[in-house]
Amino acid sequence: MKHEPFEALHDTARRDFASDNYAGMHPRVVEALAAANGGHQGAYGADDYTQRLQEVVRGHFGDDAIAYPVFNGTGANVLALQSMLPRWGAVIAATTAHIHVDEGGAPERTGGLKLLTVETEDGKLTPELINREAWGFGDEHRAQAGVVSITQSSELGTLYTPDEIAAIAEHSHRLGLKVHLDGARLSNAAAALEVPLRAITTDAGVDAISLGGTKNGAMLAEAVVALTPEACAGLGFSRKFLMQLTSKMRFVSAQLLALYDGELWRENATQANAAARRLRAGIEAEQARGALGEVAFTQPTQVNAVFATLPADVANRLRESYRFYDWDEARGEVRWMCSFDTRDEDVDAFVAALVAASRRGGETGSA
Amino acid sequence: MKHEPFEALHDTARRDFASDNYAGMHPRVVEALAAANGGHQGAYGADDYTQRLQEVVRGHFGDDAIAYPVFNGTGANVLALQSMLPRWGAVIAATTAHIHVDEGGAPERTGGLKLLTVETEDGKLTPELINREAWGFGDEHRAQAGVVSITQSSELGTLYTPDEIAAIAEHSHRLGLKVHLDGARLSNAAAALEVPLRAITTDAGVDAISLGGTKNGAMLAEAVVALTPEACAGLGFSRKFLMQLTSKMRFVSAQLLALYDGELWRENATQANAAARRLRAGIEAEQARGALGEVAFTQPTQVNAVFATLPADVANRLRESYRFYDWDEARGEVRWMCSFDTRDEDVDAFVAALVAASRRGGETGSA
Amino acid sequence: MKHEPFEALHDTARRDFASDNYAGMHPRVVEALAAANGGHQGAYGADDYTQRLQEVVRGHFGDDAIAYPVFNGTGANVLALQSMLPRWGAVIAATTAHIHVDEGGAPERTGGLKLLTVETEDGKLTPELINREAWGFGDEHRAQAGVVSITQSSELGTLYTPDEIAAIAEHSHRLGLKVHLDGARLSNAAAALEVPLRAITTDAGVDAISLGGTKNGAMLAEAVVALTPEACAGLGFSRKFLMQLTSKMRFVSAQLLALYDGELWRENATQANAAARRLRAGIEAEQARGALGEVAFTQPTQVNAVFATLPADVANRLRESYRFYDWDEARGEVRWMCSFDTRDEDVDAFVAALVAASRRGGETGSA
Amino acid sequence: MKHEPFEALHDTARRDFASDNYAGMHPRVVEALAAANGGHQGAYGADDYTQRLQEVVRGHFGDDAIAYPVFNGTGANVLALQSMLPRWGAVIAATTAHIHVDEGGAPERTGGLKLLTVETEDGKLTPELINREAWGFGDEHRAQAGVVSITQSSELGTLYTPDEIAAIAEHSHRLGLKVHLDGARLSNAAAALEVPLRAITTDAGVDAISLGGTKNGAMLAEAVVALTPEACAGLGFSRKFLMQLTSKMRFVSAQLLALYDGELWRENATQANAAARRLRAGIEAEQARGALGEVAFTQPTQVNAVFATLPADVANRLRESYRFYDWDEARGEVRWMCSFDTRDEDVDAFVAALVAASRRGGETGSA
Repeated sequence: MKHEPFEALHDTARRDFASDNYAGMHPRVVEALAAANGGHQGAYGADDYTQRLQEVVRGHFGDDAIAYPVFNGTGANVLALQSMLPRWGAVIAATTAHIHVDEGGAPERTGGLKLLTVETEDGKLTPELINREAWGFGDEHRAQAGVVSITQSSELGTLYTPDEIAAIAEHSHRLGLKVHLDGARLSNAAAALEVPLRAITTDAGVDAISLGGTKNGAMLAEAVVALTPEACAGLGFSRKFLMQLTSKMRFVSAQLLALYDGELWRENATQANAAARRLRAGIEAEQARGALGEVAFTQPTQVNAVFATLPADVANRLRESYRFYDWDEARGEVRWMCSFDTRDEDVDAFVAALVAASRRGGETGSA
Repeated sequence: MKHEPFEALHDTARRDFASDNYAGMHPRVVEALAAANGGHQGAYGADDYTQRLQEVVRGHFGDDAIAYPVFNGTGANVLALQSMLPRWGAVIAATTAHIHVDEGGAPERTGGLKLLTVETEDGKLTPELINREAWGFGDEHRAQAGVVSITQSSELGTLYTPDEIAAIAEHSHRLGLKVHLDGARLSNAAAALEVPLRAITTDAGVDAISLGGTKNGAMLAEAVVALTPEACAGLGFSRKFLMQLTSKMRFVSAQLLALYDGELWRENATQANAAARRLRAGIEAEQARGALGEVAFTQPTQVNAVFATLPADVANRLRESYRFYDWDEARGEVRWMCSFDTRDEDVDAFVAALVAASRRGGETGSA
Repeated sequence: MKHEPFEALHDTARRDFASDNYAGMHPRVVEALAAANGGHQGAYGADDYTQRLQEVVRGHFGDDAIAYPVFNGTGANVLALQSMLPRWGAVIAATTAHIHVDEGGAPERTGGLKLLTVETEDGKLTPELINREAWGFGDEHRAQAGVVSITQSSELGTLYTPDEIAAIAEHSHRLGLKVHLDGARLSNAAAALEVPLRAITTDAGVDAISLGGTKNGAMLAEAVVALTPEACAGLGFSRKFLMQLTSKMRFVSAQLLALYDGELWRENATQANAAARRLRAGIEAEQARGALGEVAFTQPTQVNAVFATLPADVANRLRESYRFYDWDEARGEVRWMCSFDTRDEDVDAFVAALVAASRRGGETGSA
Repeated sequence: MKHEPFEALHDTARRDFASDNYAGMHPRVVEALAAANGGHQGAYGADDYTQRLQEVVRGHFGDDAIAYPVFNGTGANVLALQSMLPRWGAVIAATTAHIHVDEGGAPERTGGLKLLTVETEDGKLTPELINREAWGFGDEHRAQAGVVSITQSSELGTLYTPDEIAAIAEHSHRLGLKVHLDGARLSNAAAALEVPLRAITTDAGVDAISLGGTKNGAMLAEAVVALTPEACAGLGFSRKFLMQLTSKMRFVSAQLLALYDGELWRENATQANAAARRLRAGIEAEQARGALGEVAFTQPTQVNAVFATLPADVANRLRESYRFYDWDEARGEVRWMCSFDTRDEDVDAFVAALVAASRRGGETGSA
C-alpha cells in the first residue's frame, strides 16, 4: 500500500545552545540505520552489528573490553555501577555528578545504590576528595564505598588529564575501590585532549565506563563497556531486569558503529568543542571591545560547554531567540552548550544576539 | 570529512520464524527517522513529534489518552503497572504473561511489584480466574491486588474479544481493581478482530496500555498510554527514574507516528497475521495430503504465531534452515512467528522445509 | 521515683486456637530477659549473649554454623534468601510458602527477589516439583533460579522426613541451586520427628535456615543461621540495610538461648504438637460417637496445626468463644493451631465448644 | 520440666560511655513485659496493649495521632519517610542525619528514597539551609523533594527550640514539603527543654515522627507516630513489607507504655541528660584546676552526649577502662554518651580515669 510521504514537522534550520541532545543524528548514523535494516537478525544482541561492535570496542579499549549496548546514559550508569557493587555498596562521586543531580534518583531507587557525594570546585574528584568519603570499611552501619565514579568530560565542561585519572584509579584501587567513568561525553574529552579513547580509560586504570553515543550524533545509543570484566558481575542479566535490553539491538549497535568504527566520534566531538571555543572567544572579543562586561565565565571551556553568569534580564532577552539552560538560578549562572552540528555561523549569530540583548538592557536602563 | 559508506553486515534476504523482533524496520519508519532529523528540537519530549503523537493517540484512544513514549515493552509494562499501584500493590496476571516469564524479574526487582499469577488454558484471564487471586483486601499480610494485567494478543497467540475484555474490566472495576493491557501486539489483535484500537482498550474499560511499536515494524518504540489518567500516578517522574526517558524523544515518537498516524500499524499487523494463517493452512494442507502427521497445533492461530508440537529430531533438522523458539521443551512445543515482512514465499519455503525435515526423519528411520 | 505497678491489661487465662503467636512468652524467656539486663553491653551483637548463642548454634548445627539474630520471620527469610542470590536470582517455593502468601510482597519489593512458585498437595516440594521451575539457566529473560526454599514444618502442618529434605538438597545442588529452609516451626518438626535439629538441616544438606523462636515461646527472636557460610554473602551488611539489626541484641540472643541452650525448644514444641494431636483425637472421638459428621480433616496433623473443613454456621458459632483463622474461605477450610501453652483442658473445652456449635446448628435447623 | 536458672553471662555493674544502647532495660520495662505475658492476645496489633498505646499517644501528641510500633529506629525512619513520599520523592536532611550516615543505605536501597543532604554546623537544619536543596519542583530529572527530616535531639547532641522547629515546619509547608522528625531521643529533648512532647512535635507543625524507646530504657521498641495522618499513606501495609511488623506486638507496645504511660520517659531522659552535664562540668572543673588542657568541647552539651577532641594517646589509654566512639577520627573527636542508668559515681569515675589517662601521657612524655 502506498503511504503519504512522512513530512518533517519541525524547523530543521534551528540551532539552540541548550544541550547536545537538542541536536539530531549525524547523517552517517541515519545511513547506518538504513544499512542495518532488512532481513532477519537474531534479537537481543545475537546480530552481526553487535558482534562487530565488540571488535571495535576491543580496538579502542583493549582485548578485555566487552560492550553492553543500552538505551540511555542513566541506564548505562546504573547498570555499570550496580554490576560493580554488592547490594550494600556505595558510590563516591562529585555533588555535581549526573548520577546525583540528573537521574531522578534512579541510582538509589532503581539501582539500590547509596551515593556518597563530595563537593568540588570544578566537577572533578581527586584522591584527597575521595578520602573524605572513603572510610568506615567493614562497619555495617555505613554503606560500603566500593566504586569511585568520575565523569569525563565533567558536567561542568572540565577535563581530567590522563594522569589525573590514573592517580584517581591508583588511589582507589589501593583502597579496594573500583573506578567507573561516566563517558557520556568521553568523545569530547578525548578529542580535546587529542588522545585515543583508551588513554583516559583502560590505560588510566578505569574498570568500567558508560560510553556515550547520543550526545555526539547518535539517535539513542549508549553502552556499558567493561574494561576489567571481573570487576563487573552479571551485566547481561542485570541489563534485562534494569529494562535496558533492546530486542532489535542491531540498530543500537549500528549507531555506535557509525561513530566508533572509524573516526566520526572524534570529528563530531572536535566540531562541538571548537564551537564552544569559538563561542567563548567571540564573547571575549566583545568584552575586549568593551561590550558584555556583565558576562563572567565560571568554568574553563575545555570541551563543548560554556558556563557563565550574566544578569537575568539579559539572559531573558537572549532566550527570546535561543534556548539554553539555567545552571544555578540563584547565581545567575547559565550553560551554553554546542553540539556536533553547531556551525560557525550559529555561534556568531548567538554572540551577536547576546550583544544585542545586553545593549537592549543598557538602553532600557538609560531610558 | 568524507566517510566510507556504511555497509550492511548481514544477510538482508534472510527470514526466520523466531520472533517479530527478528525483523527490522518498515521503510516508512526509516523515512520518519530521516524526516525527524536535522535542526534542534527540545529534548525529553518537548518536540513537535511527541506533541503530534499526543493528537494521534487521542484520535485512537479518546480525548483523555496521554502517551508516554518509552524504549521497550518491559519498560512500558513496569512503568504502567507501577503508576497504577501503591507500593504495597500486586498485579493479577496469567502465568504465561510476559511480565511473569520474560522480563527477568523486572516487575518485582525494579518495579517493586508482587505478581499474583493464575494458570490458564490459552493465556487469557476471565473474571472467574481473576477471582482466584482477588481476595484478602485490607489484609496487611497479603500484597494487595490492585491491577489486573491482560495481554492482547496473548503470549499464546490468542485473542480476547472486545466483550471478553469488557467483562474483565467491569468485573475488575467492581472489585476495585484497575485494568492494564500489555499491547505489545495490540495491532495484531485489532487487525485480526477488524476493530479500531479503542474497541479493545478504551471502549472496553481498560485503564492503561503498553502500546507496542517494535514488534510491528518500528526500530524501538513503545509507549505507556494512560486511558484513564487518574488511574496512573506520576508517569513522568517514574519514567525518568525507571530509566525509560529518552533525550532525543522526537525519534521514538516519529517511529510511533510512522505506524499510528495512518494505517501502517494495521497493514503491518494484517500482513503478519496473514502469514501465520498461511503457515498453518500450508501445514494443514500437507497433513490432508498425508504428510506431517507428527505435527499437532496446540493453540488456535488467531494472530501471527503458530504453536505446535513436533518430534525433536524434525525440529532440529528444520532448525538447520530456520531459527524459531522452543516454547515448552518438555512437551516438544515450538512457536513459529511471522512478522510484517514475512512474505508468502517465505512461508511456502518454510512449509516445504518442514516437510523435508519430516521426510528426512522417516528416511533415516527406515534406513 | 516510685511508679505505679504495671498492671496487666488483658485476660491472662484466655486461650485461642488462632496461631502460636497469640501465645506469650515461656517463663524461662522472661527469666532470660531479666538475667540479661543491667550493666552495659556492647551493642549490635558485641555482647556476651550473642557470643554464647554462636556456641549453642554450633552445637546444634555444626561447626560452620553462624547465627544472625533478627526480629521476625519475614526478616529472616528475606535476609537469608537475598544473601544466597545474585540480584538476578529467583527462589523456587511452594505456592503455599509463607514467603509467597504471608509477607506482603517483602521478598519481591524489599528483597528484590523473584519467586517461582509450584502448586503442591501438602505444602511440600519434591525434586519433581522443583523441576517445573528449574529451567532457563543462562537465559537473561528469565529470572535465574538460585535457591529452593522449603518450610519445615510446612504451612499446612506437614512434615518433611530427613530423607525427603536430603533428596531435595541433593537434587537442588546438582542443579546448582542452594537450599533454604524456613524454620519458623523447625522445633515443632524436630520434636515430631524425634530427631536433633541438625538431622533436618545441616545433615540433610540445607545451606541456610530461618530459625524460629517467636512461635515457640519467645517474645520476638528469630535468626538466620548460615550452615554453609560460603553460600551466604554479606549477611552482616544486609541485616543492617534490611533493617533487621537490633542495637540491644543481647535481649534477642538471650531469648534464643532460653530456648536453644538446653531443651526448652523441644519441650515447648512437643507440648504444642501434643495439643494438636489431642485436638484431632478429640474430634475423631466425637465423630466415632456420631457427632461432628460435618467436620473433615484436610491435612495430616503432624505438628501443631489441625486443618479442617466445616460448615460456615458452625464455624461462626464456634468463633463466639474462640478465635481461629479461615484458611480457604471458599472451601470452608479453617486452621486450628496450638501453642506451647495450650493445655489439655483448653483442648477439651475447645472440642466441647465445637460439638455445642455443631448441635446448636442442628437445633436451629430443626426449629 | 524443671530448668536450670538462666544465669547472667555479663558484668552487670559495668558502665560505658559509648551509647545509650549499651544500657539495658529500665526495671519498669521488665515489669511491663512480665505483666503483658500470659494468656492469648491477638497478634499483629490486635491486643490490649497496642490499643492502650493509641490512647497514650493521643494524650501526648493530640487526637489525630496514630502509633505504629516497630522494631528499631532505622525501621521507623524508613517507614515514616516512605509513607510521606511518592516513589519519586526525596528527603532533605543534614549530612549528619542518622538516615544518611548510620543506616547502611536503608533509606535508599530498602526505602527507595533519595536523600538531599545539607552541611550544617551543629546538626540542625534551618529554613535557609533547606532552601539549598528545595528546588527543581516539577523537573522530572530531579528527585522531588517532598519531606524535610530533622532529628531532635540531633546526632550532635544539640537541640532545636520549639520555635526553631515551628519555623522549619512553616517554611517547609509553604514549599509543599512535609516534616518528619527523627525522635530516637525525643525524650531527651523534651526533658532538656522542659516542655511536653507535643511542644516540639504536633504543636510545632511536625507531620510524623519516629518515636524512640530503645535508647531511653526499653529493650527494643520504637514507633512511627503519624501526627497528620493524611500526610502518611499506607503505614499498615508498608510496615509489613518493610519487615517491621511484629506478631506479638503486645510486648513492644507494653515497653512503650512503660515509658510513655506516665512520666518514666522524662525521668530516664532527665537522668541521662544530667549525667552528661555532670560529665562536662567535671571536665571543666578539672580544666579550671589546670588539668585536661588538651580536651576541647566541639558541641554544646544540651542533652546526653558530650563531643570533644583529645589527643589520640589519651583517648587510647582511657579506652582501657571505658568504651566510647570515635566521632571524627581525623580530627580526634570522640563522643561520650550517657544513658538513663548512668549514675553520678559512674561519671565521676570516668572523669577521674580521663584525668589519669591524661597524666599518664604527661609522665610518659616527661620520662
